Amino acid sequence: MNNENNIKQMMLEIGKKAKHASKALALTSANDKNAALIAAAKSIRLSKDDILNANKKDMDIAIDRGLSGSMLDRLLLDENRIEAIAQSIEDIAKLKDPIGDVIDTNIRPNGLEISKVRVPLGVIGVIFESRPNVTADAGILCLKSGNASILRCGSESAHSSRTIHSCLVSGLKEAGLPEAAIQLIPTQDRSAVGELLKLSDYVDIIVPRGGKSLIERVQNDSRVPVMAHLDGICHVYVDEYADLDKAVSITLNAKLRRTGICGSAETLLIDQKVADSHMPAILDALDKEGCEIRGYKNVVTKFAKATLATEEDWGTEYLDAIISVKIVDGVDGAIDHIATYGSQHTDSIITENAENAEKFLNHVDSAIVIHNASTQYADGGEFGMGAEIGISTGKMHARGPVGVEQLTSYKYQVRGNGQTRP
Amino acid sequence: MNNENNIKQMMLEIGKKAKHASKALALTSANDKNAALIAAAKSIRLSKDDILNANKKDMDIAIDRGLSGSMLDRLLLDENRIEAIAQSIEDIAKLKDPIGDVIDTNIRPNGLEISKVRVPLGVIGVIFESRPNVTADAGILCLKSGNASILRCGSESAHSSRTIHSCLVSGLKEAGLPEAAIQLIPTQDRSAVGELLKLSDYVDIIVPRGGKSLIERVQNDSRVPVMAHLDGICHVYVDEYADLDKAVSITLNAKLRRTGICGSAETLLIDQKVADSHMPAILDALDKEGCEIRGYKNVVTKFAKATLATEEDWGTEYLDAIISVKIVDGVDGAIDHIATYGSQHTDSIITENAENAEKFLNHVDSAIVIHNASTQYADGGEFGMGAEIGISTGKMHARGPVGVEQLTSYKYQVRGNGQTRP
Repeated sequence: MNNENNIKQMMLEIGKKAKHASKALALTSANDKNAALIAAAKSIRLSKDDILNANKKDMDIAIDRGLSGSMLDRLLLDENRIEAIAQSIEDIAKLKDPIGDVIDTNIRPNGLEISKVRVPLGVIGVIFESRPNVTADAGILCLKSGNASILRCGSESAHSSRTIHSCLVSGLKEAGLPEAAIQLIPTQDRSAVGELLKLSDYVDIIVPRGGKSLIERVQNDSRVPVMAHLDGICHVYVDEYADLDKAVSITLNAKLRRTGICGSAETLLIDQKVADSHMPAILDALDKEGCEIRGYKNVVTKFAKATLATEEDWGTEYLDAIISVKIVDGVDGAIDHIATYGSQHTDSIITENAENAEKFLNHVDSAIVIHNASTQYADGGEFGMGAEIGISTGKMHARGPVGVEQLTSYKYQVRGNGQTRP
Repeated sequence: MNNENNIKQMMLEIGKKAKHASKALALTSANDKNAALIAAAKSIRLSKDDILNANKKDMDIAIDRGLSGSMLDRLLLDENRIEAIAQSIEDIAKLKDPIGDVIDTNIRPNGLEISKVRVPLGVIGVIFESRPNVTADAGILCLKSGNASILRCGSESAHSSRTIHSCLVSGLKEAGLPEAAIQLIPTQDRSAVGELLKLSDYVDIIVPRGGKSLIERVQNDSRVPVMAHLDGICHVYVDEYADLDKAVSITLNAKLRRTGICGSAETLLIDQKVADSHMPAILDALDKEGCEIRGYKNVVTKFAKATLATEEDWGTEYLDAIISVKIVDGVDGAIDHIATYGSQHTDSIITENAENAEKFLNHVDSAIVIHNASTQYADGGEFGMGAEIGISTGKMHARGPVGVEQLTSYKYQVRGNGQTRP
């Protein structure tokens, strides 16, 4: 009980300090923010040995706990990965500063000049798992967009994240910005996350990055608005008019380039009219690359190496070298399947028929809809945003990749000369 | 228990029907939507007698229940008000259709063409109190922006709202649009609102319009994202460099033009340097117009008719002919007071000094910040949006007046020619 009160008090203090820092940040020049970024990148490079030592502690604990190979790989830092963190911070520094942009100006008949001006959201809480580099990415993206951040890493990366965070803080100090602009919550006590979700007076938005259970917990418990990154159950649909070579190369890339990212394809849909002409080549290619194939009953009868998919498969984000496959009735069948099982993330149609392509692009209700390219392009960098904090599958505020500009809001500045409303 | 299950089931059906209708609406042309609007306006005019009769029932019940005069006025419909409803629907029909707008196109070095296209949010739940015309405004704004709506009116306007709603439905029918595009929830059972807030699979956003207790309940209980319209604790700050005539006329207008709207001023802040030169004329004018004045201790010593304000006054939205007044230390004092007690709605500075004006416009963290004009301009119509569903005081998604465009989201349509990601 006493400890619970301490955590509550600690989180309240963190929230107040963040709010206070956010007011200064909202008015900080692009130059000063960039100076802090450059200094942070430098500090990351200078602290390379400290970061490696901290990461070794995290890795030793993770191995003791028996974490899986892919989890260990996500946690591991080496010299290259540390250099990539520093580089990524410098890349964000080079992005255009969105704050203060006049989005729109409108002079009313009564002479009032109404300007819509971009401002930061305020304080952003970011809750994430395992990858220690997210500490830098999230904190720096928030800073670039003029927001204070409260970061909560997974307990498995506690030592690495703490060391990286101290580099960010030294960058803030060097540029004369408030240290509370980027705060890291201690991981010892799990109840801190619950308290963070209640800080609606001080936190403007929560961004959870992680598995389904984390995101569901955050969505259910949060009193603060949540920008959610749900499942990426992405589909590739091979249309009647698909070019076979494109269908093979795009499906392979969408599924297997990297299987652990949210934009990787989980389900392949094939028009029945090309099930015989196109499906064997695509599935053979997947099989040859070691991809497990789980087929609907109309697939297993045609492709012997496929096992029978269950209902559960259609709603599963494998994040692994597994694909579910179904033969559907044309573009309408594909649209229906995606409406039922998709997660409104990213879906792609392979076709040379413009009408079917437009139908798919207009009817599929996902953040990103693609014609004749891989679903793995679902990425802020590939969209030209420079960096992203994730992909939003909600429709409120930002949709799709969330970069620097998506972490902002706007205000209306109205300039008059004595107008009173009739 | 059985009844509870029935309500749950009913709301689930309403949600499913709305989701289904929203898919058709998202692809409905501007012409078809406008045809439904024009037909609905016509039906409102033709049903004038039915609406007046229904409203009489609501008024009789309200009088029996002893509702206050201002509540009765909000509820009352007459021929002029019914014509105004029809007119407002026709005005919304004339607005530009936002759906399908290409907000941005970006051709990447690899040839991918990425278009950001405006799409509806989907299904919008609107919960509102007393004014029956909101039934038409809310349903029609959602329809124009391609969204299906689920409306819940206050029980006091049940008969009026039901009759207005049936006019909207007859407009939908005449244009061949799904009737479930605008649904009205029966008011008999209060648990229906609770069920609506849980329909996160079918409802994309909830817009509560009403008093503080309604909005707090919705924000606490909703599993669906909420676009909130909180208090309008709006300030007028009279700066050291204020023109006295402007200060008097703007303060009078901001406070008294209409006291019951969210953009009306509740607090007057005056720089100490002009407390003697400006304050008496402003307060005398307010007093002459019948406005009650509650002053901070530094005000009551200078203006005898003012009563002493309590701490509670600074955070109170009077919505009445009452104003709280405080002498502050310059523009910084005003900014601090607003940061502490304001509701991030609309605040105005009266000054002839450009530097102080810019400081106020940049530092006050409200949706609308105004220089030398009345806070009562906080209105979608005055902003040129044509009509609004309310003023958002949150920073997520839309901020300030929420018109047709603010009820939309976007998707990315990506057009390629076989690109796979390296």
